[in-house]
Order: sequence, then structure tokens, then C-alpha cells
Amino acid sequence: MHTELVCVGTELLTGHLNTDSAFIGQKLPDIGIRLDLETTVADKKNDIEKIFQEVLRRSDLIFVTGGLGPTFDDLTREVLAKVLKKKLVFNKEVMETIAYRFAKRDIKMPKENDRQAYIIEGAKVIPNKSGTAPGMIIDLKVNPVKSQKSPVVIILLPGPPKEMQPMIRDIVLPYLKNKFERKIIKTHLIHVCGLTESEVDQKIKNIVETERRLEAGELTFALLAHPSVIDIKITASGTDEMVIDGLIKKAAGEIKDCLKDDVFAENNQTLQTTVGYLLGKKRKTLSIAESCTGGLLGNVITSSPGSSLYFKGGVIAYSNQVKTDILKIPEEILDEHGAVSKEVALTMAQAIKGLYQTDFALGITGIAGPGGGTDNKPVGLVYIALVSKGNQVTKECKFIGSRQEIKFASVIAALDLLRRMLLKN
Amino acid sequence: MHTELVCVGTELLTGHLNTDSAFIGQKLPDIGIRLDLETTVADKKNDIEKIFQEVLRRSDLIFVTGGLGPTFDDLTREVLAKVLKKKLVFNKEVMETIAYRFAKRDIKMPKENDRQAYIIEGAKVIPNKSGTAPGMIIDLKVNPVKSQKSPVVIILLPGPPKEMQPMIRDIVLPYLKNKFERKIIKTHLIHVCGLTESEVDQKIKNIVETERRLEAGELTFALLAHPSVIDIKITASGTDEMVIDGLIKKAAGEIKDCLKDDVFAENNQTLQTTVGYLLGKKRKTLSIAESCTGGLLGNVITSSPGSSLYFKGGVIAYSNQVKTDILKIPEEILDEHGAVSKEVALTMAQAIKGLYQTDFALGITGIAGPGGGTDNKPVGLVYIALVSKGNQVTKECKFIGSRQEIKFASVIAALDLLRRMLLKN
Repeated sequence: MHTELVCVGTELLTGHLNTDSAFIGQKLPDIGIRLDLETTVADKKNDIEKIFQEVLRRSDLIFVTGGLGPTFDDLTREVLAKVLKKKLVFNKEVMETIAYRFAKRDIKMPKENDRQAYIIEGAKVIPNKSGTAPGMIIDLKVNPVKSQKSPVVIILLPGPPKEMQPMIRDIVLPYLKNKFERKIIKTHLIHVCGLTESEVDQKIKNIVETERRLEAGELTFALLAHPSVIDIKITASGTDEMVIDGLIKKAAGEIKDCLKDDVFAENNQTLQTTVGYLLGKKRKTLSIAESCTGGLLGNVITSSPGSSLYFKGGVIAYSNQVKTDILKIPEEILDEHGAVSKEVALTMAQAIKGLYQTDFALGITGIAGPGGGTDNKPVGLVYIALVSKGNQVTKECKFIGSRQEIKFASVIAALDLLRRMLLKN
Repeated sequence: MHTELVCVGTELLTGHLNTDSAFIGQKLPDIGIRLDLETTVADKKNDIEKIFQEVLRRSDLIFVTGGLGPTFDDLTREVLAKVLKKKLVFNKEVMETIAYRFAKRDIKMPKENDRQAYIIEGAKVIPNKSGTAPGMIIDLKVNPVKSQKSPVVIILLPGPPKEMQPMIRDIVLPYLKNKFERKIIKTHLIHVCGLTESEVDQKIKNIVETERRLEAGELTFALLAHPSVIDIKITASGTDEMVIDGLIKKAAGEIKDCLKDDVFAENNQTLQTTVGYLLGKKRKTLSIAESCTGGLLGNVITSSPGSSLYFKGGVIAYSNQVKTDILKIPEEILDEHGAVSKEVALTMAQAIKGLYQTDFALGITGIAGPGGGTDNKPVGLVYIALVSKGNQVTKECKFIGSRQEIKFASVIAALDLLRRMLLKN
């Protein structure tokens, strides 16, 4: 089977990152399909038509993303219908769904959105839960472009990732899996914090080498480095699902035994869901006092649904006035040690713990840059404090990177400090 | 001129983001060249050969990235030489540079790296400052694949961004600029908030149509929809820079006159930098009280360097206890109207303004979901309040989307409310 992706959008040829291509390329192997070719074409009628002709000539499974919007430069639907020699037919149900989306937000639907209710004749509609343009599955017994009779499947998807991704996950992958029964491929992610990529590599090297030699199925490993976090990706493939599950379980178990507490989560779990789980299990509460992170720590904690069960809130103490007036940090401490110091981080954590009456409290103060650094206290210097009943700990961190990267690294370090304390007590 | 990019690498079809394509697409317009098409192909000899044949048939300028490494799956050099009917010739100078890189790191050079010293006959070598594989410029008077006599330029580059990017910047762009004295292309972005994509389309339709007819240079428009924000991208091309600047200025002016206060920024500016600029200009300060956004508003505000000049901080009042204890919201108001109400949003804003002694204060309360919604107060219902000396305003919003999307939409709406008030007073 020859599988291709066509991405339509001038913006992808003028500097925008193509995340659709990465997402589809990553997901297809889950159902044993590999992407053979990807083409990006501008929003120009003739160019799109030529590419569709070519792609239909050489492929059996074709993904198309982008160009399904309501406006003048969205051409995919019309051009594909033309190349396939199919009509566009008005779909009342789709129209009603689009109208409902506007009604729910009390907005009058513009006339332009009518276009999105036209479906290529014979296509199966993929509902759009996060936008207006529906996707389509066009499953043809006869490819209208090829000379010899052969089938072709065309999957038409909107370009915005939040609209496209759920369609792939919920509708397209199950549809294709059912249609093309193929080798099973499963992946498993182990998330690690507090080690560099090379340290993880060094530590698990022996496991990775042993496992690779197994013959019951194919097993491969990859290290993926993200800001402050390393992922170990285990991929197993074969024909027997139980064998594959067994291979993954064994390999994951050995890696976790080796890396111990440096593993903070697996698969879809995150550092904040792990921390939330541990706090919830122990029925403990948390409050935070943030300076340089400016609200990011709170935002990350509250990205987990249900975080209101353990997170009471915080104070963003961006100015020194807030540090003294609200958190009651003595001016002497600020004068003697400076706002960026372990003493101030600790006093911030103690103060918020008292004010919000929580079991745990985190304090963060630092220099996110790009300005504000000195020789003694350079950009990237961050102090984190964690206090609980009878326990207090501070940590000095030296991060490098942009303002946003330093804020993010501080948040991860703070949550990891709390996670490790929750594991101990 | 038809310009194409071919990216060689299986990893780009299995989930890796293609940053080379974004980089090249972004840089070429600086010298008046547009990327017309991008193709990604796996590390398979036959596939690469077929794509090279096709690309040579239809293009005059071809960029190729990836597949120049020392290992078995690096095939670009050999396949391209074959398609061009050229020999690979050993280049002593390149060999010495590669050997020197290894010597400098006290590493014995593996035999495999020999391959990288072979250059396609007649190619100009592009030195690699961050790796071993050199790039090449192959400038041919006669394209060996096309039937009629026509020239073609092929630019061969290594895949790793830190090797490829300096080659583009330092060697390739100056070479092409010198060779093709061409049209200048400039772009201009106008950022809009408070309207849907179709509403923007409707409003500016006449301007877009009029402008397109201009003959002094080519002018095109595109709408890019982001969460809560619409971008209008104006692209102008021609041979006279002053004419182009004039075209853009005129079109941007007309769009801004038409959309008025719905335009919140242009080019690299963001909503938070605009708000920061307006606060700074008026020497006013801001504090915030967030419930459902959990710190995201503070994080967005403090993503601008220098935000400490106008942002004093905030309170993340996630639990009702914090709302009553810290913000002193009377229990009657919470009981009568519920935590998600315009009354509570307003009291939050008033309280934080008093506590932090600022000129402006924002309060946000709502239901970010996925749980917590009722028939009366569904997920996505958010109240925003803005208070200043002698002024107060509340806004009811109904957002749809994921938890993270609702939080983000709330933050944009809050900042936009503040921006519009700052414009008036």
C-alpha cells in the first residue's frame, strides 16, 4: 500500500511549522500503516489540482489536510471534487451542526460558512467537535485517475490541529484499522525528570541492548528530549497483541526499576497529574507563591481537571510591594538577601501556607530575563522552596534559555521537588 | 520560476517536526523567492529517485535536505548523482576538513565518513561549520531530465538544522540573490480580536477585492485563524521596494480603518505587549484575581519582558475559602449568586485593586470544565470584570472547547476588555 499526505496551505511554505504532518506520521504506525510521502502545496487552484492528479496516480491511501475553511482562499473541497469527477452536495445535517455552533455562542452565522456544508458525493462525514469544517472519508472502489481499476481511500481533514487530531484519533484510525487488518504496533512512554538525556542513555543502555535481541516480536527504543523532561519511547510490533503487551510490560518494568524515582509518569500522565494524584491520595492541599513564574505554576497545576480538590490557589507576588504587604515578608530579609534568594523563597512558601491554610506550599523567586541579571545573580538563577508540617527544603537552580524556557523549567523543578517529597512521606 | 524543496528522511514521516521546511520557507521570501511545493520522502532508494525525476521535470530551483550522513540509510548524494547523470568525485579538501573535526575531538574517524568527501561533479562545495557533511550548489545550464534546454539550480543541504541553517544564511541566500535579481516580497500581519474568521472576511471583502486589482505590484491577502485571534496577512511583491512598502501601507491602513478597535496589534506585537504598552504609556498599574484561569492570565501578562513595570501581581483564588478569606468576598454574595457570577467577578476585581493598590484590576471566574457544569451554568461560562477609578465593567462569555482552550479564551477576552478600556480613557 502506498500512503501519502497532502497538506494544503501557503502558510506552510512561508515559515509555519507543519504539525499536521508530524501528528499523522506519528499516529499511522499505531495501526500498522506507514506514511510514504508528504507534499505541501500553496493555496493555488492549479497547483492543488496538479498535485491531486499526481497523488491519485501513485497512491492507494491519501490524506489531505487544510483548505476547508469558509473563506476565499480555501479551495481543497472544490478542487478535489473536480479531480474525482464528483459533485458537491449540500448536507442539511452538517449545516445544522455548524449553525448550532454559532447559536451556542450567540453569534449570527456568516453566509460564507454555507460552503462548509457541501460534501463530496458519497463521502462519509467526520463530525468536527472543535470547529465548523467537517472531515470526509471518500472510499472509492475505482480510482478515477488510474487507468487500471483499483480502489483508493481519501481522507479529507481540516488543517487546525485541534480540529484534525480528534478526527484522526476517534474516527479515521478505527476506520482504517478495520479496513486494512495489519501488523499491530504499540508504543509506551516513560517520562523522566531530573536527569539529562545522556544520563538516561547511560543508565538504561544495557536494558535497551538486551531487549533488542528478543525474537518474540520487534522491540525498539527511542529517547525524546523535551524541555526539562526526557521521554523513553518503547515500540513493540508483531501479530499477537498479548505477546506485544508482554514485551512492553517487561521492558517498561526493567526501565522503571533502573531509573526508580526519576520516572514521574507514563503515557498520557504528566508531572502535574502525578503530583495531583499523590496529593489527592494523601488528602493534602497545596498553595503557591510565585514571583518570576508569574502565574505559570498555577496554570500548569490547574491544567488537570479536578485540581480544585487539592489546589487552593496562590499569590502572584510580582512586585516587592506584594511580597511585603500581602505575604508579609520582612523588609530586612528583602534588603539583606535580595528578592531573589533562598530566604525569600522560603518566606514566601511559609507565608502562603499560613494564609491559605494548606498542608504544602511552594515558593518561587528568580530572574527570568532577558534583563535584570547581574554577575552575582545571573539570568536563570531561581530559588524554589517547599514547606510542609515540620519539613522545609530549598533548592537553587541555574537554568539557561529564553524567558519562557526559564519560567517553564522553574515550574517543572518546583513540581518535581514536591513530587519527591510526597513519595517519601 | 518554480521552486521546490525535497526533504529526505524517514523520521519526518514518522512524527518528527519538519523544521527545515519552515526555515527555508521563511527565509526565501527575503530574496524574492517563493517556495511553491515541498515533498518529504523516506530513506528509500527507489522513492527518492522517482521524486528527483519528477521534481527536475517541473522545477527550476530545487532544494534538497537530508540524507547526506555517513551511514547506510543516507542515500541522497548517490541517487541525485545518478538522476543528474554525474559522477561522484573525491574531494581532498573536504576529506581533510572532516578528518580535522574528528582530530579536534580526539576521536578516530570512522571509515564510513569517507563517503561524505565525495562531491557531485561540477558542484560548488558549501563548507559545514557544525558537522561533517558538506552542502553543494549544482548550477546546471541544461536540466538533464527536461526535454527542452533549460537551466536548473540544485541546492543540496544536510538535514540537521544547526548545520543547514548557517549554510542557507551565509552561502545559499547570497548566491541566489546574486544569480536571480528578482522581485522583492514583503509581508505584514494585522492581528484581530473579538470577531470570527467569517466576520473578518465579510468586513474586509471589498478591500481585499479592490486591492487585488492593483497593477503596481502583486498584493495578496490571507486569513489565519488562531484560538480567539484572527490574523490578516498582507503579502506584496514587485521590483521596487518603495512601491511595495506603499502598497502594504495603503492596504494595512484601509483594513485598520475598516476594523478599527478590533485590530489589537501588528506583526510581532501581541495582545499582552499592546496592553503593556498602553499601561506603560499612561503610567498605570494592574493587578488580577483569577479563579478558573488558575494563573494563566498572570503567565501571559508576564511573558512580556519588562512587565514588572506595570504588573504588580495577583491572587489565584481557586477555592472559595481564598475568595472569602483573602479577597474578603462576602459569603452572602457567594451564596446568592454562586462563585461563577458577574457579581463575584466584580467583587474579585474590586478586592484585588484595593489589596494591591493598582489603577486597574481584572477578575475572572468561570467553569473551565470538563466537569462542574450545570444546565444554568454550563462549562465555558466565564465572567470577567474590569475596574478602575470611577469605572467598572463586567462581561459574560460563553466559550466552547477543551479546558485549556476555555482558559486561554478567557485570558484573551480579559486582556481585550482592558485594552479597549485603555483606548477609550
